[in-house]
Amino acid sequence: MSARVRARDLGIPLKGTPGPLNSITDVRGVEVGHRTLIEQSEQSSVGQKPIRTGVTVVLPRGKSISGKLEEKQTFGAWYSLNGNGEMTGTTWLEESGLLSPIIAITNTHSVGIIRDAAIQWLIRQSTGSALSDNCYNPLSLPVVTETWDGFLNDLNGFHVKPEHLFDAIQSASSDHVDEGNVGGGTGMVTHDFKGGIGTSSRQHGDYTIGVLVQSNYGLRHQLTIAGVPVGEEMLEELLPKGKVNPIPFKQQEQGSIIVIVATDVPLLPHQLKRLARRVPLGIALVGGRGGNNSGDIFLAFSTANQQAMGKSTGLAQLEMFPNELMDPLFEAVAQATEEAILNAMIAAKTMDGIHGNKVYAIPHQRIREILNKYNRLKDN
Amino acid sequence: MSARVRARDLGIPLKGTPGPLNSITDVRGVEVGHRTLIEQSEQSSVGQKPIRTGVTVVLPRGKSISGKLEEKQTFGAWYSLNGNGEMTGTTWLEESGLLSPIIAITNTHSVGIIRDAAIQWLIRQSTGSALSDNCYNPLSLPVVTETWDGFLNDLNGFHVKPEHLFDAIQSASSDHVDEGNVGGGTGMVTHDFKGGIGTSSRQHGDYTIGVLVQSNYGLRHQLTIAGVPVGEEMLEELLPKGKVNPIPFKQQEQGSIIVIVATDVPLLPHQLKRLARRVPLGIALVGGRGGNNSGDIFLAFSTANQQAMGKSTGLAQLEMFPNELMDPLFEAVAQATEEAILNAMIAAKTMDGIHGNKVYAIPHQRIREILNKYNRLKDN
Amino acid sequence: MSARVRARDLGIPLKGTPGPLNSITDVRGVEVGHRTLIEQSEQSSVGQKPIRTGVTVVLPRGKSISGKLEEKQTFGAWYSLNGNGEMTGTTWLEESGLLSPIIAITNTHSVGIIRDAAIQWLIRQSTGSALSDNCYNPLSLPVVTETWDGFLNDLNGFHVKPEHLFDAIQSASSDHVDEGNVGGGTGMVTHDFKGGIGTSSRQHGDYTIGVLVQSNYGLRHQLTIAGVPVGEEMLEELLPKGKVNPIPFKQQEQGSIIVIVATDVPLLPHQLKRLARRVPLGIALVGGRGGNNSGDIFLAFSTANQQAMGKSTGLAQLEMFPNELMDPLFEAVAQATEEAILNAMIAAKTMDGIHGNKVYAIPHQRIREILNKYNRLKDN
Amino acid sequence: MSARVRARDLGIPLKGTPGPLNSITDVRGVEVGHRTLIEQSEQSSVGQKPIRTGVTVVLPRGKSISGKLEEKQTFGAWYSLNGNGEMTGTTWLEESGLLSPIIAITNTHSVGIIRDAAIQWLIRQSTGSALSDNCYNPLSLPVVTETWDGFLNDLNGFHVKPEHLFDAIQSASSDHVDEGNVGGGTGMVTHDFKGGIGTSSRQHGDYTIGVLVQSNYGLRHQLTIAGVPVGEEMLEELLPKGKVNPIPFKQQEQGSIIVIVATDVPLLPHQLKRLARRVPLGIALVGGRGGNNSGDIFLAFSTANQQAMGKSTGLAQLEMFPNELMDPLFEAVAQATEEAILNAMIAAKTMDGIHGNKVYAIPHQRIREILNKYNRLKDN
Repeated sequence: MSARVRARDLGIPLKGTPGPLNSITDVRGVEVGHRTLIEQSEQSSVGQKPIRTGVTVVLPRGKSISGKLEEKQTFGAWYSLNGNGEMTGTTWLEESGLLSPIIAITNTHSVGIIRDAAIQWLIRQSTGSALSDNCYNPLSLPVVTETWDGFLNDLNGFHVKPEHLFDAIQSASSDHVDEGNVGGGTGMVTHDFKGGIGTSSRQHGDYTIGVLVQSNYGLRHQLTIAGVPVGEEMLEELLPKGKVNPIPFKQQEQGSIIVIVATDVPLLPHQLKRLARRVPLGIALVGGRGGNNSGDIFLAFSTANQQAMGKSTGLAQLEMFPNELMDPLFEAVAQATEEAILNAMIAAKTMDGIHGNKVYAIPHQRIREILNKYNRLKDN
Repeated sequence: MSARVRARDLGIPLKGTPGPLNSITDVRGVEVGHRTLIEQSEQSSVGQKPIRTGVTVVLPRGKSISGKLEEKQTFGAWYSLNGNGEMTGTTWLEESGLLSPIIAITNTHSVGIIRDAAIQWLIRQSTGSALSDNCYNPLSLPVVTETWDGFLNDLNGFHVKPEHLFDAIQSASSDHVDEGNVGGGTGMVTHDFKGGIGTSSRQHGDYTIGVLVQSNYGLRHQLTIAGVPVGEEMLEELLPKGKVNPIPFKQQEQGSIIVIVATDVPLLPHQLKRLARRVPLGIALVGGRGGNNSGDIFLAFSTANQQAMGKSTGLAQLEMFPNELMDPLFEAVAQATEEAILNAMIAAKTMDGIHGNKVYAIPHQRIREILNKYNRLKDN
Repeated sequence: MSARVRARDLGIPLKGTPGPLNSITDVRGVEVGHRTLIEQSEQSSVGQKPIRTGVTVVLPRGKSISGKLEEKQTFGAWYSLNGNGEMTGTTWLEESGLLSPIIAITNTHSVGIIRDAAIQWLIRQSTGSALSDNCYNPLSLPVVTETWDGFLNDLNGFHVKPEHLFDAIQSASSDHVDEGNVGGGTGMVTHDFKGGIGTSSRQHGDYTIGVLVQSNYGLRHQLTIAGVPVGEEMLEELLPKGKVNPIPFKQQEQGSIIVIVATDVPLLPHQLKRLARRVPLGIALVGGRGGNNSGDIFLAFSTANQQAMGKSTGLAQLEMFPNELMDPLFEAVAQATEEAILNAMIAAKTMDGIHGNKVYAIPHQRIREILNKYNRLKDN
Repeated sequence: MSARVRARDLGIPLKGTPGPLNSITDVRGVEVGHRTLIEQSEQSSVGQKPIRTGVTVVLPRGKSISGKLEEKQTFGAWYSLNGNGEMTGTTWLEESGLLSPIIAITNTHSVGIIRDAAIQWLIRQSTGSALSDNCYNPLSLPVVTETWDGFLNDLNGFHVKPEHLFDAIQSASSDHVDEGNVGGGTGMVTHDFKGGIGTSSRQHGDYTIGVLVQSNYGLRHQLTIAGVPVGEEMLEELLPKGKVNPIPFKQQEQGSIIVIVATDVPLLPHQLKRLARRVPLGIALVGGRGGNNSGDIFLAFSTANQQAMGKSTGLAQLEMFPNELMDPLFEAVAQATEEAILNAMIAAKTMDGIHGNKVYAIPHQRIREILNKYNRLKDN
C-alpha cells in the first residue's frame, strides 16, 4: 500500500486538521476490518455471475474481549436522510442510547445473514454471560447495514456467508483503513465513478472525530470537489458501461451512502444524534441530495464514558461535553464526511462485473486539471 | 378446531363488535400463515435442545401474485412503545409510507435468515420486474420482526430456515387464524402463562379493524382481564417451572409483544401512525407497561388505496378518511389489541421445552371464577 | 382545605406507595403555583362572559434564584399521544435535552401571552447574565402548554394577562398542591364531569416520581376507576348542561390532558422520554384513548444532575440510573398518572359558566357504590 | 423597486430554472406580506432603543376568505436541523399532516403575542364557523416562528403588537416579495453581513417549488457562494461593529434560519417531510452547519389537494405524486434554499441599531471580483 493516494495528496483544498491516520481509527479503541469477496476474472462474460462484494466491520471498542461483553457498548444515535435502506438494531439504539459492540456493512441482500452471524459471534464471545444463558439480552440486536451493489455484483446469488463476517472481525485493527474496492464497499459506485469505503478524521483539541463511509450514491453531474463543479466538467467522461443503454446510472439515483461517525468526545445519546444530523451537510458539499432510492443512513457513537451501559448496582458516573461547545464538532463531521467520500473515490480502482457492466475509477490527474481551471488547486 | 375456545366464549365482557371471524383476516385481502416448529418430545430432558419456535406471516394483500409485485404494497406506519427488539424494514416504511408485501414474525435470533429469505421469495415472485433486473428496488426491504422464545426453545440452535418462511406463505389464507402455540408464537409466554399468536377484529360501519399479536410479555401480578385483577388472584398459581429457581420470569419483564393492525379504512401513512400509537392503550388494559427488556413494536396498514405505491406516470388517485372521524378507530385498536392478547393466552396449551422449563396454559375455569368474584362475568 | 378528599380517601384500590404529600411536590425542589381566574357569579346569564380560567406553573428547581438562571434547567423530554394542542419550547427540549426553568399551563388561546411573559420573567431574574445582554440565550424558549376551556370560560375574551403568570410563580411552593378548579385547570372537564388539576406521587426506594395533570379529556362512557366501568354505570347521570342540546361533549371527544412527570432519579434525556411514553398507559386505565381533538402532550424531567446544563469550561459530571432497573419507574408513571386524574375529578366542584353551560362534580358516594357493586371497594 | 438587484443579476452561476418571479409567490395561491418596524434614526445613540424588527406572513392559500376557513389548510410537514428556536403549531402539524392557514415569522420574544393574535384573526375570519362557537377547533394552533434580532433591535422592549400581524396580512399579495431588511427579517444578520428575508423558486415541468427564508445565521469564514470561499476572502472586511469588542458574532454562531418551502406538487404529508429534510443541503452550500445556538427550523407545504382537510361526510379525493419521481424536487429545494439566502444578503442594506451596533451589507462588486478570481463568474 506504499502508493496509496488520498484526496489531500491531489491538492484538493480540504479544511480542518486530520488525525495521524486521517481515519476513523484515529479515535482510540475503534477497529475496522474488511472481508473482500472478488471471484471470477474481471473479464467475466455475462452469466458467469462475478462476485464483487464483501463485509466491513467497525468495532467501537475493538474486538478483543476482556471483561463483560456488555461493556463493549457505547452511547450512540442514528439519523436517516433518506431511508431507502436497511439498518438493523436502530430501534433499540433509539430507545436505549446504546450501540451494539459490532457494526457491519455489506450488500442489500446479505444484511440478514450477517445480522444473525453477528449474534452468533456475540454468543461465542460471551460464554458465561447473559447471552449464553436463557435470559433475554439486548446484545442480540446488532447493527448491520448495507448499500446495493447489483450493478457489478451477483447480488441475487446471496454469496455472503457468516464466515465472511468472522473473517472481517478477525482482520480488524486500529491501524490505517484500506479504502476503495474493499469489504462492504467492493462493488460500490459513486457519482458514476467507482466508489467504496473511505475514511477521514478531524482533531479538535485533544479530541478526535472520525468518519467511515460506504459510498455508493450520486449522479455524475452532481459531483462537486472543494466547491468546483467537477462532475459538470466530466459529464461524458468514463461513464459506466453496461448491457442496458443508456444505463440506469445516467437516469436516476440508484445508490446510497452509509456513514459511521466515531468520537472520543464524551457526548450523550441526544448529543450524538446532533452529530448524525450533520452528516448530510458533508454529503451536500460533494453533491449528494438523498435520492428517493437512497438508503442514506448515519450512525454516531462515542467511545468515552466506559460506564455507558450502566451499572446493575448503583449509578453510572458519566462525563458530558457541553452543548454550547459543539459547533466545532458539527463542522468536523461535515468536513470529515466530505473527505471520506473523496478518499473512497480516489482509492477505488476500475472494476467490471456482472452482465459485463464496468465502472471506472476517477482519474486523479483530471481532478487536478479541473481544480486548477477554477484556481482551487492547493500546493502540496 | 371445533373445540376452539376464545375470550368471548368464557364470558369475558369485551366491548365492541367483532367481524365474522373476529380475526385480522376479517380485513378483506389480508392473509395469515404459520409454520410451527416443534421437535423433540415435550418430555425431553435437558440437553436435547427441543425446538419450540416457528414463523408467522401476515400478507396485507395476500400471497397470490397478479399484476406487479409493487402493487402489493400498502400504506403503513409503525410505532415502538419500547424498542428492545428488531423490526427490519421500518426505515423505509417511515420514509415512504409504504409497507412491504410481506410481514414475518419469528424468534429473536432468526430475523436475519427470514429477512433474506423474504427477499428471495420476492425475487422469485417478480420475474421480469425490477427486482429481477439489476436495478435497485425497495421491495428488498421486507418487514421481519420477532419476540424471544429462549425460555422454551433452543434459540441459540438457529433452527429456523428459509423454507419455513416459504411454508408459512404457502399456508396463508384469509380464513380463521390458528392461535396460541403456532408459528412465530410457538414458544412464547404471557403474564407467566403460555402465550403466542392471537387475533381479533372490530367493525366500524362498513369498515373493519383487525389485530394480530405475537404475545410474549408480562409479569403475573400485572395480568388484568376486563378490569379485574386476575393476576393478583393467581399470584402463585401455575407459575412457570425451570431449572433456575426462582426463574427470571418472576423477577423482571423478559418479553415483548408484536402487534399488527390491519384496516380497510382509507388512511394515509400519517393517519396509520395514529393507529399504531393507540396499541399501547390496549396493552395497558391487560397489564403491560413496556418493560425495559421488551421489544413492543407495532405496525398498522391499510388495504385501501390500491394506488398507494404511486404511478410511474401521472398522479395516483387516493381516498382519505377524515381525521375528525378517527376516534372510533382509536377505540377499536385498543379493544382489538386487548382481545387478541386474551385470545392468544386462552388458545395456548401448556408446553415444556429446553432445560426442562415448563409454562402452563391459563386455566379457563379460573378466569370465570375470578370474573364472577368481581361481578364481571357476562352471560353468554 | 381541611376537608380535602382525594381518590384514596374514597376506598379506590390504587396500587403503589405514594410519597408524603402524594403530590408532584414530593420530588424535592419542585414547586407548583396557581393563579385562578373566576369572575362573574356562577349564575351569570348568557352574554355576561364569565371568566373561568387561570395559570398553573411547575418550577422544576423552584422559583428562588440563587446562582445562575441557567442552572435552573433540568434534563427533560416530551411525548405526544395526540398532538391537537400547543406546547412551546419542545423543539429545543428535543434538541438539547434541557428543560426550561419554568413550565406554565393555561388555556388554548393564552399560550402566547404567557409564553412571552415567561421570557419577561426570565429576563428579570437574570440581570447581569446572558439573557439581559445582547446575546442569544436558549432560556428564551420556555415551555407553555394548554387545554381548551371554552365550554365554561369566555375563551375568546383573552382574559389571561402576564401578571397572572407572575402571580402563579409568586404563589409557588413545595407544599401540597390545590387540585380541581384551580389555576390552568379552573374551567376543565373530564369524562363529562368537572375536571382540572390533579397530582399524585410514587416512591421507589429512596426515589420519588411525581405527576401533575391538567385533565380535560374523556367521554362519559369511557370512565373507568380501578378497572370498574363507572362511566357505563352513570351514563345518564349528571351530564353537562348547555345551550346546545345535545351538547358536543356527548358526541365526540373535545378535550385534552397535559401531564407533567417529575422525578429525582438521575435519568438522561433519552431515558426521560421513556417515562413520557408511559403516560398513555395510565390514561388508558381511566378510559382515555387520545381523541382526534385532544392535545395529549406529556413532559418528563429529572431534578438530579445539577450539572445537566453543562459547564462552559470542562466536562459536566453526571450520574445515570441503569436502563435495566427502570421497570418500576414505568409502573410508577402509569399509576401516578391514573391517580392524578382521579384526584383532579374528585377535588373538582360543580361549576357553571359561559352560555349557561354547567358541569357537575362527580359524586363521591356514587363512586363508592359502584366500586362496591363490583367488589372493588377497599377498606380504609 | 426598479433597482432591485438579486443573486442572478451579479453573475453568480446558480443552477435550475426559476419561476417568473423567482419567488415563493410563483406557487399559485401563496401570498406573502410584511410589516416592517423601524423606529429611531439609524444614527440613534446607545440607550435610545431603536426598533429594528417586524412580522412576515406566508399565507399558503392566500388571505381572502371564501368558503370555510378550514379549507385554507394544506398538507404540510416540518423538520429541525437544530432546534434552538420556537415554532408553534408543529405538534398538530406532525399529528394531522395539516398546516395552519397562516404562517408568521417574527423575532424571538414576540412569538407569543403574534401567535395569540393569529388566533384572534382566525376567529374574526370564521364568524359562524366552529372557531366562533364553543367547540374546540384545531385552527387555534397557528404556526408562528422566529429568529433572534437582539444585535440590532431592542428585543427586550417587546415592541411587536397584534396589529403588526394584521398589517402584514393586509399587505399580503402574490406579487414579488420584498427582500432584505423587511418584515420579520428587518434586524437579521447572515455570515456577519446584513441578512433578512429572501426568496427563490424552481420550475419542474408544470410544477413549482418556492422557498422563503428569514436568514440570520452564519459566521464570516463559512460563507460560500457557488462553491467559492467568499467568506475566507473577506475575513476581515466589513465586520459588524458593536460596543463589545470582539463582538460575539466573531466568536460563535448566535443565529438561525427559518425556511418555508411551498409547492403545488400534490405531495402527502410524509412526502413533504422529505422536502423539509433537504433544506439543510441547500444551507450547507452557503456554509451553514446548524450551530448549537441556531433555531434552524423548516416547513414544507403543498397547495394541491384542496380536500386536504378531509370531508366531514364521506372520503376526500386526493392526488399523489410518486415517490420515485421526487429527486428533481429534492434538488429544487436545495437550489432554491441556496439562492433565497443569497437573495436575502444581496437585497439587505447596511443597518445600525441598539447599542450602536452596526451590520454592513455585502458589497456586490466584491462578490463579482471573488467569483472572477475563481473563474466562476457567469456572463449575464
